[in-house]
Amino acid sequence: MNQTIETILNHRSIRKFKPEKLSEEQVQTIVRSAQQASTSSYMMAYSIIGVTDEEVKDELAEITMQSYVKNNGHLFIFCADYHHVTSQAPQSTYDKMLANLENSEHFLVAAIDAALAAQNAAIAAESLGLGICYIGSIRNNISRVDELLHLPDHVIPLFGMVVGVPAHQPEQKPRLPLKAVYHENSYKEHQQELNQFNEEISHYYASRSENTRTDTWTDQMLRRFTKPMRMDVTDHVRKKGFNKK
Amino acid sequence: MNQTIETILNHRSIRKFKPEKLSEEQVQTIVRSAQQASTSSYMMAYSIIGVTDEEVKDELAEITMQSYVKNNGHLFIFCADYHHVTSQAPQSTYDKMLANLENSEHFLVAAIDAALAAQNAAIAAESLGLGICYIGSIRNNISRVDELLHLPDHVIPLFGMVVGVPAHQPEQKPRLPLKAVYHENSYKEHQQELNQFNEEISHYYASRSENTRTDTWTDQMLRRFTKPMRMDVTDHVRKKGFNKK
Repeated sequence: MNQTIETILNHRSIRKFKPEKLSEEQVQTIVRSAQQASTSSYMMAYSIIGVTDEEVKDELAEITMQSYVKNNGHLFIFCADYHHVTSQAPQSTYDKMLANLENSEHFLVAAIDAALAAQNAAIAAESLGLGICYIGSIRNNISRVDELLHLPDHVIPLFGMVVGVPAHQPEQKPRLPLKAVYHENSYKEHQQELNQFNEEISHYYASRSENTRTDTWTDQMLRRFTKPMRMDVTDHVRKKGFNKK
Repeated sequence: MNQTIETILNHRSIRKFKPEKLSEEQVQTIVRSAQQASTSSYMMAYSIIGVTDEEVKDELAEITMQSYVKNNGHLFIFCADYHHVTSQAPQSTYDKMLANLENSEHFLVAAIDAALAAQNAAIAAESLGLGICYIGSIRNNISRVDELLHLPDHVIPLFGMVVGVPAHQPEQKPRLPLKAVYHENSYKEHQQELNQFNEEISHYYASRSENTRTDTWTDQMLRRFTKPMRMDVTDHVRKKGFNKK
């Protein structure tokens, strides 16, 4: 076990930060780390918006219903971005590009590119003693977030990440058993591992230091998936030129 | 600068490996590192297949047209996975879940969850002195790869990753200038930075130690995007229950 793997295995999402802001140097180190991630066919199909404007942060905290979107050391928004390419295409070339830009393949590529970059940013930040939390809830109102950040066509906000000096140290949340996630050569059913996990997680929820409750992972997931969530993401994504066919 | 950030900034994709296979312990460390990544609303919407069967590796090398998909220390395939949840839902609950499972939001969530996990795996492997390369080209024939791995409904292969002891040390590929990727508060046009990058990259292609050529990033991207790529991904993804609406 080395220091890097220790950092990775020690991850927990941090939702309370000390008031210190990240230095310019920390922000640059985190962004450069993000950029060094692998990228599909060299497309680098993402961009990052650092939000420091307090009015914009207020509105993002409201959209996400998370006060730590306002109160943190720095807020990054990771976007899918083909504008790097489309902005340079003559009209006739652009027209020919649409079949690719609008298919599921290239929606996937941009989401994956952005996420690989983001996870490098997360690990870099954590290695500096900072805490992080991903903010998927910017998609609670994806079109408003898009508007707030003035994103052009072929750029959409995917998720945020808050970074800062941790002001709490929550327990680590258990993960699915390795055998439920990792299979050799072909996919295996894993009901037994899921049952075992539900026992473990109900103990975790009953005994953790904050927000104790009676629950299992399966119950939590079934509740979550039966409630329609962010149904407007589909339309917004298409409106901006992604995932249309 | 610490060791973790050094590892991150030192990344280059490795495509030639020594014949050593990863140990069981190395595979487990890499998978556990993957699992510790953040996950949207605790969904853990991914799974990983480790491919060791030589016949399956032969066919994957053919599909991806990459010999290193066969010749490596270990091959991981990262999948989007809602089967962890759907496999536990009674029929009436399952029917109610479809609106969520089939929207773009949940296609995004699974792709992002899988990519965050994968990048943790990549960094963990690199911190152990191993090299890695992502394999997006498993999507050259996504339905055949899906079949080879016996993936059930609501599981699709997204990308592979080969890991092993490096047998070469290629140059690092330049990244877009920081100002083309990172914007403060709102998106800025960045034609000047892209021009500057094209100069840099044409020098890189002309002077690197292998496969020299005359090219710019923009030309490469425009060529790539005008050629229809993996147009069957859209249909396959829908057939498996993702991204239908």
